[in-house]
Amino acid sequence: MTKWVYGFGGGRADGSSKMKALLGGKGANLAEMSSLGLPVPPGFTITTEVCTHFYAHGRSYPAALEAEVEAAIAKVEGELEMRFGDAGNPLLFSVRSGAPVSMPGMMDTVLNLGLNDETVQGLVAASRDERFAYDSYRRFIQMYADVVLEVDHYLFEEALEAAKAEADCRFDNELDAAALQKLVATYKRIVRKQTGEAFPEEPRVQLWGAIGAVFGSWQTPRAVTYRRLHDIPSAMGTAVNVQAMVFGNMGSDCATGVAFTRNPSTGERSVYGEFLVNAQGEDVVAGIRTPQPLSRAMAESGSFSADESMETLLPDSYAELVSVFDRLEAHYREMQDVEFTIQRARLYVLQTRTGKRTAPAALRIAVDMAAEGLISEDEAILRIDAASLDQLLHPTLDPDAAAEVIARGLPASPGAASGKIVFLADDATRAAQAGEDVILVRVETSPDDIHGMHAARGILTSRGGMTSHAAVVARGMGKACICGVSELLISATEKTVTVRGRTLNEGDWITIDGAAGIVMLGQVPTVDPVLSGDFATLMGWADKKRHLKVRTNAETPLDARAAVGFGAEGIGLCRTEHMFFQEDRIVAMREMILSPDVEGRRRALAKIEPVQRDDFVELFEIMKGLPVTIRLLDPPLHEFLPHAAAEDEAVAAATGVDIKLVRRRVAELREANPMLGLRGCRLGILYPEIYEMQARAIFEAALVVFEKSGETVTPEVMIPLICSARELELIKARIVAVAEAVEADRGRKLTYEIGTMIELPRAALRAGEIALHASFFSFGTNDLTQMTLGLSRDDAGRFLDTYLHEEIFASDPFQSLDQDGVGELVQLAVERGRAARPDLKLGICGEHGGDPASIDFCHRQNLDYVSCSPYRVPIARLAAAQAALRGA
Amino acid sequence: MTKWVYGFGGGRADGSSKMKALLGGKGANLAEMSSLGLPVPPGFTITTEVCTHFYAHGRSYPAALEAEVEAAIAKVEGELEMRFGDAGNPLLFSVRSGAPVSMPGMMDTVLNLGLNDETVQGLVAASRDERFAYDSYRRFIQMYADVVLEVDHYLFEEALEAAKAEADCRFDNELDAAALQKLVATYKRIVRKQTGEAFPEEPRVQLWGAIGAVFGSWQTPRAVTYRRLHDIPSAMGTAVNVQAMVFGNMGSDCATGVAFTRNPSTGERSVYGEFLVNAQGEDVVAGIRTPQPLSRAMAESGSFSADESMETLLPDSYAELVSVFDRLEAHYREMQDVEFTIQRARLYVLQTRTGKRTAPAALRIAVDMAAEGLISEDEAILRIDAASLDQLLHPTLDPDAAAEVIARGLPASPGAASGKIVFLADDATRAAQAGEDVILVRVETSPDDIHGMHAARGILTSRGGMTSHAAVVARGMGKACICGVSELLISATEKTVTVRGRTLNEGDWITIDGAAGIVMLGQVPTVDPVLSGDFATLMGWADKKRHLKVRTNAETPLDARAAVGFGAEGIGLCRTEHMFFQEDRIVAMREMILSPDVEGRRRALAKIEPVQRDDFVELFEIMKGLPVTIRLLDPPLHEFLPHAAAEDEAVAAATGVDIKLVRRRVAELREANPMLGLRGCRLGILYPEIYEMQARAIFEAALVVFEKSGETVTPEVMIPLICSARELELIKARIVAVAEAVEADRGRKLTYEIGTMIELPRAALRAGEIALHASFFSFGTNDLTQMTLGLSRDDAGRFLDTYLHEEIFASDPFQSLDQDGVGELVQLAVERGRAARPDLKLGICGEHGGDPASIDFCHRQNLDYVSCSPYRVPIARLAAAQAALRGA
Repeated sequence: MTKWVYGFGGGRADGSSKMKALLGGKGANLAEMSSLGLPVPPGFTITTEVCTHFYAHGRSYPAALEAEVEAAIAKVEGELEMRFGDAGNPLLFSVRSGAPVSMPGMMDTVLNLGLNDETVQGLVAASRDERFAYDSYRRFIQMYADVVLEVDHYLFEEALEAAKAEADCRFDNELDAAALQKLVATYKRIVRKQTGEAFPEEPRVQLWGAIGAVFGSWQTPRAVTYRRLHDIPSAMGTAVNVQAMVFGNMGSDCATGVAFTRNPSTGERSVYGEFLVNAQGEDVVAGIRTPQPLSRAMAESGSFSADESMETLLPDSYAELVSVFDRLEAHYREMQDVEFTIQRARLYVLQTRTGKRTAPAALRIAVDMAAEGLISEDEAILRIDAASLDQLLHPTLDPDAAAEVIARGLPASPGAASGKIVFLADDATRAAQAGEDVILVRVETSPDDIHGMHAARGILTSRGGMTSHAAVVARGMGKACICGVSELLISATEKTVTVRGRTLNEGDWITIDGAAGIVMLGQVPTVDPVLSGDFATLMGWADKKRHLKVRTNAETPLDARAAVGFGAEGIGLCRTEHMFFQEDRIVAMREMILSPDVEGRRRALAKIEPVQRDDFVELFEIMKGLPVTIRLLDPPLHEFLPHAAAEDEAVAAATGVDIKLVRRRVAELREANPMLGLRGCRLGILYPEIYEMQARAIFEAALVVFEKSGETVTPEVMIPLICSARELELIKARIVAVAEAVEADRGRKLTYEIGTMIELPRAALRAGEIALHASFFSFGTNDLTQMTLGLSRDDAGRFLDTYLHEEIFASDPFQSLDQDGVGELVQLAVERGRAARPDLKLGICGEHGGDPASIDFCHRQNLDYVSCSPYRVPIARLAAAQAALRGA
Repeated sequence: MTKWVYGFGGGRADGSSKMKALLGGKGANLAEMSSLGLPVPPGFTITTEVCTHFYAHGRSYPAALEAEVEAAIAKVEGELEMRFGDAGNPLLFSVRSGAPVSMPGMMDTVLNLGLNDETVQGLVAASRDERFAYDSYRRFIQMYADVVLEVDHYLFEEALEAAKAEADCRFDNELDAAALQKLVATYKRIVRKQTGEAFPEEPRVQLWGAIGAVFGSWQTPRAVTYRRLHDIPSAMGTAVNVQAMVFGNMGSDCATGVAFTRNPSTGERSVYGEFLVNAQGEDVVAGIRTPQPLSRAMAESGSFSADESMETLLPDSYAELVSVFDRLEAHYREMQDVEFTIQRARLYVLQTRTGKRTAPAALRIAVDMAAEGLISEDEAILRIDAASLDQLLHPTLDPDAAAEVIARGLPASPGAASGKIVFLADDATRAAQAGEDVILVRVETSPDDIHGMHAARGILTSRGGMTSHAAVVARGMGKACICGVSELLISATEKTVTVRGRTLNEGDWITIDGAAGIVMLGQVPTVDPVLSGDFATLMGWADKKRHLKVRTNAETPLDARAAVGFGAEGIGLCRTEHMFFQEDRIVAMREMILSPDVEGRRRALAKIEPVQRDDFVELFEIMKGLPVTIRLLDPPLHEFLPHAAAEDEAVAAATGVDIKLVRRRVAELREANPMLGLRGCRLGILYPEIYEMQARAIFEAALVVFEKSGETVTPEVMIPLICSARELELIKARIVAVAEAVEADRGRKLTYEIGTMIELPRAALRAGEIALHASFFSFGTNDLTQMTLGLSRDDAGRFLDTYLHEEIFASDPFQSLDQDGVGELVQLAVERGRAARPDLKLGICGEHGGDPASIDFCHRQNLDYVSCSPYRVPIARLAAAQAALRGA
């Protein structure tokens, strides 16, 4: 015979956590806790099979149900020594829905079920708090009428407002018992008027009404839509959980509290939490009374005396609570966040769940639990949200500081920073040299602004997305950055920024939290990161497990050094164009672009070559023999010319080129879609002299370093934007010729590799042919995403939110790799490339190289390495280990 | 025993056309002609195996070779009754290389081999032309010294110049026999000085020298590079062809001429050609003497009397020639272009090859030959170059007219047109209304210029490629257009265009030939197209064979009518945005874009809706029940706003919107890469009201047409730029809702389909999911090419030439589909789409839909239809038939 009702409580349960399909998630968990011997308020679960029966039989129940419910009620009554509907000491119930998967679209909870004009007197007597009892009663009526009887809740709110007006008070809690009692009567009148029937006084009628409402809620349009959107089968059905109410406000032997089994801020293993004697759960949160600490130690470390602790005041309950904590951790093998109530000296655990914690606490807890033998090292590795490591490496807002948030944007680069507003990169440099902290505020940034970004403490832009120039560069520098704060109206000429009607001027202080994407007024205190030994321990464990190497995207000595400090195993992407924007080079670069012929270009390039070579020498020295992948010039040439017409004259003067020619060349180079224009290897095909200069600088630098240190450098020369094998073949031949010339000049052999970016869909498709000319592939997933989705990173910001909201994109495809689309191209390229050349080295150097989900994908594709910005190297190391463990 | 030498001549041959690998292409053809009984000058071929032996044995010959060559020489001598080296009646040879595949990088020809101081006297006697004999001798020395002895040819040219200076004459042919005899001596001195040895007088030494030079030329760096670039294996080797020289200038029983077996201008079946008595081949071409017609008929139809014809003057040879023609056509089953020489009344065919012909001639010849039973209908279909049909549909330059070409550009849209230069679209409209012919000359065109393009006879731009706006629109209109003439410096403000230093003004006449891409000064006469019955006949045959349906890309009634006239079977792409640029609509469109909220947008759209509906009504009526695929709004909204800041005020005035708001909105809508920005279905997701308006206009138009004519219209609503199934799902739901609302309003059921463009790589990859929501796919191969190759059509022009020249691209990927890259995505999408939905309708609507090679690809992918601009519909019909025949 089918069992329709599963009881729990008193240290035993009919069900278990494995019976989610039958009992729903909530019911299964209550059963589990109860079986563990935890003091859960007793109750029972009506199974999902009843729901199925309900709909299969014209909304009626199985014949045996009523008897089973009655038996379950009797068990609860026995356990608590109270009776449902008893006027003297009434047992009250909560009624909740609970489907096998979480469904926020379902029925709300009904609490305090069982109250009526008689039983409320019992509650008055038990709690010795008339006000509490009537407040509970009127809340119950309002909740029940809303959820079960479908009476519009605003009618009750109006009545409540009227009552407050009559009592001349502002807040609900100022109404006295008499006023609340009157309100109960008013509420009942509303119900009669709206439904045509009296509010049900009989507790069993209330209970069956609530049960029916839960089952009925399974097929509301809201729930049906939710299930359709989330692919949840309707046949699953919901369970109903009926559980005894317990109260912490029935005297001085009552209490209520919340606790963590370990310190959620630091991760320290100690009882951590607060409680209030003779109080309800909401009092702890409401802040009307100040909650007291649980342990003596915690009390003494704060502003309390040990005598105010639960450990002193309720020593038996405290001891029981601590033993509950041990049992919980032993069972769940995780730090728990526990809600408890003590009703007449009896401890009840209302809820336990995995406790939220700060990133440092997460780290400590994982490492400690592994040391305690509670979990394995592998589990410790998997416990840390790799992305959260960002918090360990950057300054964070002082959690105790007050702050006025004035705008929100995209959390483009983590870290918190305060500074005075500046609007121009040059101003940032000047202020920084004068020892001032500044935040650079721009509509968007361009390579011209790099020096200002270096000088600033943080960057704030009104345009651009998570992979805009500002975002990418700031992450590389490890600087706080918020992008795309569209509310900002920035006037760089007037040096003002207006937001929500408030105008800020140059020199005004603001604080930005790049991890949260919030902009605050004034100087909000921040906390510098401190890396604990736990970090090194966990990273050590992770490094043993991962298969993927982790490299960094870096071109400046600063970035390269930071990355090596974070454990980078090489440079996966050195963007040489970033080296051309410094003042000593940009003039020569512009001369090159403005030259009418190849001789002129060669002359200008000859000026750049020695500086470029010195750059590489420094990088190679920092990287001490680790691999360095250098991408030859990639962006369209117009990026090096002035963007504003006003600057043309300055350029003409600096380069000694006729102003008319400058203007003509600027006009000639303008492109409708620069992303799809004359860039990448197309430059190398049209102007071979550029790549030849770069190749020479690289090879000579390698020999200089060898001659100085004896260290053999094996540069990896990377050709960008290849769409066909033939491009690579042509350019490779020229680079090999340069290498041979350098070898002949210097009388020394070079070791080097030549490979390519795979960043166009065609390159991925033709990877088999391309691999014949490449010793490595580096997936440029930023551009590959742009091309595959037909989506410009710079322009997508305007509709990306809508796309995420409409669930067209599960996540920003520039942050987390679109595995279904872009991922298939990567997979095809890996297969075809390796088939053509089994020793092909494979890596990824897009922004995705620092994203844990994308790193997991790279691991599954069996790539050799990921490359990411320096501050993401630890994230990548951990994520790579997690991927390996998940894959094993 | 290996046979090293294969003889031919006298109506028989050792080899045949099947022996290309052994005899080379040329040798095999000579053998074939000889076997056919054609009077080929006799000779012999030294096989490619000798070449292999030559390189395998230290550049030495097989032992038996010399004897075989001697025997072959003897046969030739017997056949011609002349002897090699005979001072009285010397046999002379030509020596040529001939590899199995054509290789322009190989050795030049050596003619007149066998001449020396003695034999030249025999040539004087035989030709009775001392000047000719010495001229032949000095040319032989120069050629032999250059090709065989590797003496720099400029030394001979200097000597020739010196001789002319001495004789005080300007042209080579003014030197008399004495001067030439002296020159021979000078040439020999040069050879001795440069080589240290005397010029070889002995004919057999000359012969072996030339043979050795041919074999040696196989491994020159030039030949090796050529083979590497064209994947020709080196092991193949070359053959050497030694053939008797015959002369048409040895008396009045000698002649030389060229002939076509049919009229190459008209295709008429009649002897067509010219000859000269007592002349060399080069005299016919040189134009010093006027060649005479072959037939009496031809003579009479021109400026000759029948007595001057070969038919009259050399009746036997003429009769023989006509019978040769019949034999040639019967054998080759193609119109032949024949070179012949008559030496002492003996006819020799020197060369026969497939004759070049005009497009009308090709058509007539194919249809006639099928009628004659010479070829099948299928062969006739395959004989026509589908792309050449363009010539039949557009005006062409009068072939007899003189023209001064002033610039060249991309042949963007065929047709020839003359007109006065105008620089602005409005000026074009005004001039056209005044009855003037104008050519619109612009840097580039935009949708703003459409009315001017309609008004102009042709369009000329200095920027943009074959698929630029100007090119696409002009082809759609069937107007002549040349794009990307980068030499033009256009100043629309000063109304001048400067090219190669010459400045033209508004009102000056120019003529453009859009098929050739040439710009000419003044009014060059053109010839209007006349479609013959042959065209209809061939198209009828083609239509029976093809599997692909042919639709057109059209949105204006003009285009739609033209396309139906050319046999279009529906509209495959109606770009609704083209309908928004007309003056009565652009204002409402701008109001819509400038509206701050959805209500404002709806108000503006309500003004557009009736005009849009009327447009569709007209299109549906023209198409008479044929399918019409309507693409919803695709381009970014900023395309509808002014491009120049100066126009902002006019827009503000017209729309009644504050100028500041106009400026802000223009700035907001600006995009870094519009091609990858807020366009296509992204507009439909962000502003659902736009697509809803369009859907309503379409559905109501369908019902209007039904109510008027009883014709059921089944519009195909097409959603552009889908990258995920979810986008389509969302938009489709809204369109279906509109359809249901229209059905409810009108009380009538609609029939319609909803489908999507596949134009993003991701859409191709996810085609399986997308197909679940689409009843058809239309491959937008223009954008798919842009995304797959990361290549903007608007910007690629600057490097496309280099890419073609460097053989990175075999052809412009925007003209002919990149089958390896883009094609694989199409193939994947076809497979996945059909697997998910077997009845999925598949078509292509990019520019490639009118390109024969791409149509062949579409046939192989088993698509349902191609769609192309109206004037390409006949091309597509023919190309589709050819694809079907090739595939069968």
